[in-house]
Amino acid sequence: MHPLIRSFGFLFSPMLLALLSGAMAVSAPPSCEQWGVFEVELEGPATGNPFLGVELSATFSHDDQSITAAGFYDGDGVYRVRFSPPSQGKWKYRSASNAVELDGKSGEFEATAPGAGNHGPVEVAHEFHFAYADGSPYKPIGTTCYAWTSQPESLQRQTLKTLSESPFNKLRMCVFPKRYTWNQNDPSLYAFEGTPPNQWDFSRYNPKFFQHLEKQIVELAKQGVQADLILLHPYDDGRWGFDRMSDDADDRYLRYVVSRLAAYRNVWWSLANEWDFMKHKQESDWDRMIQVVSDADPYRRLTSIHNGYILYNHNNPLLTHASIQNGSAAEEAGRAVLYRDAYRKPIVLDEVKYEGDIPLRWGNLSAEEMVHRFWEGTVAGCYVTHGECYLSDDDVLWWAKGGVLKGESPARIAFLRDVLLGSPASGLNPIDKWQAPNICGKPAEYYLVYFGTSQPKTWEFSLPRHELEDGMTFKAEVLDTWNMTTTPVDGEFHAKSHSQYEFKDAEGRSIDLPGKPYIALRITRADHE
Amino acid sequence: MHPLIRSFGFLFSPMLLALLSGAMAVSAPPSCEQWGVFEVELEGPATGNPFLGVELSATFSHDDQSITAAGFYDGDGVYRVRFSPPSQGKWKYRSASNAVELDGKSGEFEATAPGAGNHGPVEVAHEFHFAYADGSPYKPIGTTCYAWTSQPESLQRQTLKTLSESPFNKLRMCVFPKRYTWNQNDPSLYAFEGTPPNQWDFSRYNPKFFQHLEKQIVELAKQGVQADLILLHPYDDGRWGFDRMSDDADDRYLRYVVSRLAAYRNVWWSLANEWDFMKHKQESDWDRMIQVVSDADPYRRLTSIHNGYILYNHNNPLLTHASIQNGSAAEEAGRAVLYRDAYRKPIVLDEVKYEGDIPLRWGNLSAEEMVHRFWEGTVAGCYVTHGECYLSDDDVLWWAKGGVLKGESPARIAFLRDVLLGSPASGLNPIDKWQAPNICGKPAEYYLVYFGTSQPKTWEFSLPRHELEDGMTFKAEVLDTWNMTTTPVDGEFHAKSHSQYEFKDAEGRSIDLPGKPYIALRITRADHE
Repeated sequence: MHPLIRSFGFLFSPMLLALLSGAMAVSAPPSCEQWGVFEVELEGPATGNPFLGVELSATFSHDDQSITAAGFYDGDGVYRVRFSPPSQGKWKYRSASNAVELDGKSGEFEATAPGAGNHGPVEVAHEFHFAYADGSPYKPIGTTCYAWTSQPESLQRQTLKTLSESPFNKLRMCVFPKRYTWNQNDPSLYAFEGTPPNQWDFSRYNPKFFQHLEKQIVELAKQGVQADLILLHPYDDGRWGFDRMSDDADDRYLRYVVSRLAAYRNVWWSLANEWDFMKHKQESDWDRMIQVVSDADPYRRLTSIHNGYILYNHNNPLLTHASIQNGSAAEEAGRAVLYRDAYRKPIVLDEVKYEGDIPLRWGNLSAEEMVHRFWEGTVAGCYVTHGECYLSDDDVLWWAKGGVLKGESPARIAFLRDVLLGSPASGLNPIDKWQAPNICGKPAEYYLVYFGTSQPKTWEFSLPRHELEDGMTFKAEVLDTWNMTTTPVDGEFHAKSHSQYEFKDAEGRSIDLPGKPYIALRITRADHE
Repeated sequence: MHPLIRSFGFLFSPMLLALLSGAMAVSAPPSCEQWGVFEVELEGPATGNPFLGVELSATFSHDDQSITAAGFYDGDGVYRVRFSPPSQGKWKYRSASNAVELDGKSGEFEATAPGAGNHGPVEVAHEFHFAYADGSPYKPIGTTCYAWTSQPESLQRQTLKTLSESPFNKLRMCVFPKRYTWNQNDPSLYAFEGTPPNQWDFSRYNPKFFQHLEKQIVELAKQGVQADLILLHPYDDGRWGFDRMSDDADDRYLRYVVSRLAAYRNVWWSLANEWDFMKHKQESDWDRMIQVVSDADPYRRLTSIHNGYILYNHNNPLLTHASIQNGSAAEEAGRAVLYRDAYRKPIVLDEVKYEGDIPLRWGNLSAEEMVHRFWEGTVAGCYVTHGECYLSDDDVLWWAKGGVLKGESPARIAFLRDVLLGSPASGLNPIDKWQAPNICGKPAEYYLVYFGTSQPKTWEFSLPRHELEDGMTFKAEVLDTWNMTTTPVDGEFHAKSHSQYEFKDAEGRSIDLPGKPYIALRITRADHE
């Protein structure tokens, strides 16, 4: 076997005979981008049940950093350990295994500068926000295609194409297939060995299934899309039984997934969708499984658990952010901000109901309301996720299967994305959180004022006092969030203390507004750069 | 010395010579009401610093129950161990101490049936609500007089009289005095030995201070008022220094307070008011102090910690309920309900701004708005606390000092209290929490629909589907929450399934409303008792 370099420098595999013999006979060591995937490929036992009986890991070392990653069996006698180097320079590694063929294999590689488009994994930044590991801001603009990787190949290609032309940079997606209204088709690959619908050996995985999943995760990475990977979900209803595995099978499955995927920098762990709808599990099972994933993941990728009706305790320190379903929370900014107070973590409103026309009340928002909820969530200092449920003769609804987007919200969400890209890197926060829920920004620098469904004709220039000083100068633009227009307001505004709570314009100026719904103001500091 | 029985059977002290000798020579054992206070009074060392050097506790046993309560030094060589028997019958006790005079003292007493008005301590019930230990419901209708026990005696008497004529059954009150606008007077008693304003020996307490505090807590108990006792607060600003004691002094103080007061059944622990405004403490200090109180209190009285701007993590399992300051949360029910989701505990909105006319924005709600917030909080399945800040030449503002109530909200809050007293004992909960935030109740039995500031002329009979069946019969009453009137609606309503989400009246009937703000409907089941 030979070193294997996969597309986009995303995966590099130094499968060398020298390595297999345990020697370090590599004269020019292989290389891998920082935050890329370096893969150690080894041959080992193929008899018995290698998924159960063989333990494998490798420890990667660089200067004073040392990271141990679990390996996994990939079928046909092939074992792999994947590693994503968090810093540049020479890394050495050495494997450990209870199988002699896999134990003590060592080598080294060079972690090189990241290539174009590689900003590293997304991490929590500034308490309520996110950033790439290289420091560049990441503003989640998510969408939802739960079972897209379980659809026919042509549909998957179409989904990827649609995503590439969309504003979305995060995708909520399930590992397992989905059984639900408008989702009755079986997939062609399953995660376990066995016979569909429900004769499985939960101790033996299907490498082809995971290889395919990985391929699609890499495709998302190429497009700059984070894979918000839902590890378990209730939309099975006993057809396949993936919603009711034993504790042991769940934990093993989670460790296997993490060992395969944790090195991919665009993977987020979502322990479950609607965890409380999985009636075969107790809440304590989720506590345990969150711990299993955390223990297994040497990178501590972003981790969440998504609710149905009962919110999980997002104050669990192993959860990096709160992934929340609650449509009402995005109806007005004064609600969503309470989640920030409760959890002091990034709040991702991952289901606020979907644009569409299905009879179920969670799937028939107008496009206007979908966009409105994005803005309400944004001014509350939170992030909102899109979904789309338009009825279709072929039962291909974006929310579950992907395909094409039919709604009118994505274009407007792209407009919001552009606004966010021009906003402070440290994130938008409510300025006076319990008093002026429609104003967010960064004090004395940048403000968004969102008027929602009200349609004022004028707005008196007035900002919460925080960090303002008399004489600070601002310019303003009127944003029509639905019609996607940006109209500069003539002149400048000079802050002047008006009360112990607010500053107004020194000349008492107001701003004319179009008297339509869904209008926002962007107010930015004009007297410094 | 002789047995001491304090007023209202609240405190009983079997200080017998026989007991002092360690013998059990009592022929007719003393008695104490269940949930009353039984006090073991002992003589011990009066030299050195008994507060620091002498350890004392007693273990009380009844059948298979065994409870150890810490004792405390009460000055003049007198030590006490207070105990509140949670069940009736014969209790035996035995003391333990590092002082030989206090060690191994034993005795017994009979815990008798509780007297009139003694329902035991308040506990959490039905996840989001409260009940007395005897099972009778307790619906908190709180108010706030932070420093009332630090005022002149005549004013304290007036406060108690006002409370006795008010709807309030919970009082937020501080142990320490308060230094703040409209609160500049020094108290006559301090918790520590020393010289005011700030020369204290934090290792020596002032028994007279605590005896007075206990007397007022007993007075509140007689009136059925829970003492929501704020153990630490930031309104000191260094004048006395009670806001910046050392960790050791804080922990000792907390243990001393708990040893003196935990046996009083109407005591709740509020670790702090506006904990995050106490800049000399870290958040981890609060974690520690909550643990100290919990460890010291054998009854685990209701325990909370109240925020300024940053909410403490109310998911801490040692906290029994969330005591929250956030006026905006009570502006509309769709907000407050999110706290229930986040904490899954009773939510007490202990500061939603106050009725009054001071210039600060947290102290000038209209009476209408104060009452409105009580109703919004109520239909969200939470509890709201009152406060009043009317300017006064004598600087006696109810919110801080007590005195008399001047506002118009208490009478309307009494109307709400009466509504609550007639509502299901298990509490009012949102029925369809993220869809119909203005409807609470108990499905298929009892509903409150609150229209807030909107003023509809009619309301189509429509209820969330939960537990409803075709043909169930309801009657309705129109409640004018401001004018305190209850008007029955003619006829009955017969539930009929209308959609997958709601039931309407079988004949499509609507209810006429007065077209005024602050109107509610009470809808109750008519076809069963």
